[in-house]
Amino acid sequence: MATPVKVHGPPLSTAVSRVLACLIEKDVPFQLIPVNMAKGEHKSPDFLKIQPFGQVPAFQDEATSLFESRAICRYICEKYPEKGNKGLYGTNPLAKASIDQWVEAEGQSFNPPSSVLVFQLAFAPRMKLKQDQSLISQNEAKLEKVLDVYDKRLGESRFLAGDDFSLADLSHLPNAHYLVNAAERGELFTSKKNVERWWGEISSRDSWKKVVDMQKQST
Amino acid sequence: MATPVKVHGPPLSTAVSRVLACLIEKDVPFQLIPVNMAKGEHKSPDFLKIQPFGQVPAFQDEATSLFESRAICRYICEKYPEKGNKGLYGTNPLAKASIDQWVEAEGQSFNPPSSVLVFQLAFAPRMKLKQDQSLISQNEAKLEKVLDVYDKRLGESRFLAGDDFSLADLSHLPNAHYLVNAAERGELFTSKKNVERWWGEISSRDSWKKVVDMQKQST
Repeated sequence: MATPVKVHGPPLSTAVSRVLACLIEKDVPFQLIPVNMAKGEHKSPDFLKIQPFGQVPAFQDEATSLFESRAICRYICEKYPEKGNKGLYGTNPLAKASIDQWVEAEGQSFNPPSSVLVFQLAFAPRMKLKQDQSLISQNEAKLEKVLDVYDKRLGESRFLAGDDFSLADLSHLPNAHYLVNAAERGELFTSKKNVERWWGEISSRDSWKKVVDMQKQST
Repeated sequence: MATPVKVHGPPLSTAVSRVLACLIEKDVPFQLIPVNMAKGEHKSPDFLKIQPFGQVPAFQDEATSLFESRAICRYICEKYPEKGNKGLYGTNPLAKASIDQWVEAEGQSFNPPSSVLVFQLAFAPRMKLKQDQSLISQNEAKLEKVLDVYDKRLGESRFLAGDDFSLADLSHLPNAHYLVNAAERGELFTSKKNVERWWGEISSRDSWKKVVDMQKQST
């Protein structure tokens, strides 16, 4: 690999940290390029050329530009199959399909309520914005229901997509980390036996600990 | 192929119709298995075994069960690369990554506001539920912004991911169809020159016309 891949965006962003965790698991060298969102750099004409929605992260690998964290993670696994954790996106089509369905479950079922809670409980106070208690209650109830399904699944299987840690589990780390460590909502996870075991296991991976260190260093 | 694949769920569901459009594009024989959602069949113990969230569609291919429409579509393309539209999910890793990022843009940016609008404008009146005008306005504004990005992109490229129709375009058909044909929101698409051209082109594909026929026959 001649040039390291580039990740544009702050590690404190959940979507940026999803990509960082994937790169570290895959042992793919990367360069982190700061984007000062407080100054609106993510809405600048140059940034919009690589991320047309004006969101983070944007990703570059030589001539390739990509956006959307889950698509970037899939690309990293497909492009560098022999590097780092070789099973992160499965080693056969069936394993990959199982991982993919749980990445989608994260994106479609876990992410919507957990993102609202992360914003309301962790970011709004720092930004001195008023919290919306009714939105918080609604989304806690939604997330509880999603985690009930996870608890059942994780009673049958060590990780979401099977016996091995995969992109499916990894994709949950950023939001879950904030809920447990910055939003006082650890009980959502620890109140469910199998979810608690799973969370303990995935959040103590070296790759994730490195991402958390990068987050701390960036504040 | 010994046994046709099975799709459980009503064609009127946007997620079910996404999978049907993919199967027809890929020329993969399938069997549609009705799920009476009014009777709560999607919450029955047997159904929850194949779709733990109690949503539609569920999908079966011999011993494989899958859920999440976009993951099912990717699986169909990967499992049957030589059938039907061979370029639907790209023919090289870069094309696939570009398709994947726009499928994610659909799932994360287009789907949330458009789903709310489809429910409020097309389904709520049929279910005799009261419409929430403030929710409608908020989500129209969100969708407008997303479609502004699409209009720019579609000014540079015939389809979202490049020169060819792909899973990225297909994934938008179900919600866009309801917005244009059942929610009187065609203007969201026709007011933008490139989006209008794109919508005209993707909605007139034979595969999608067949899905619309299946929807009509099921009412």
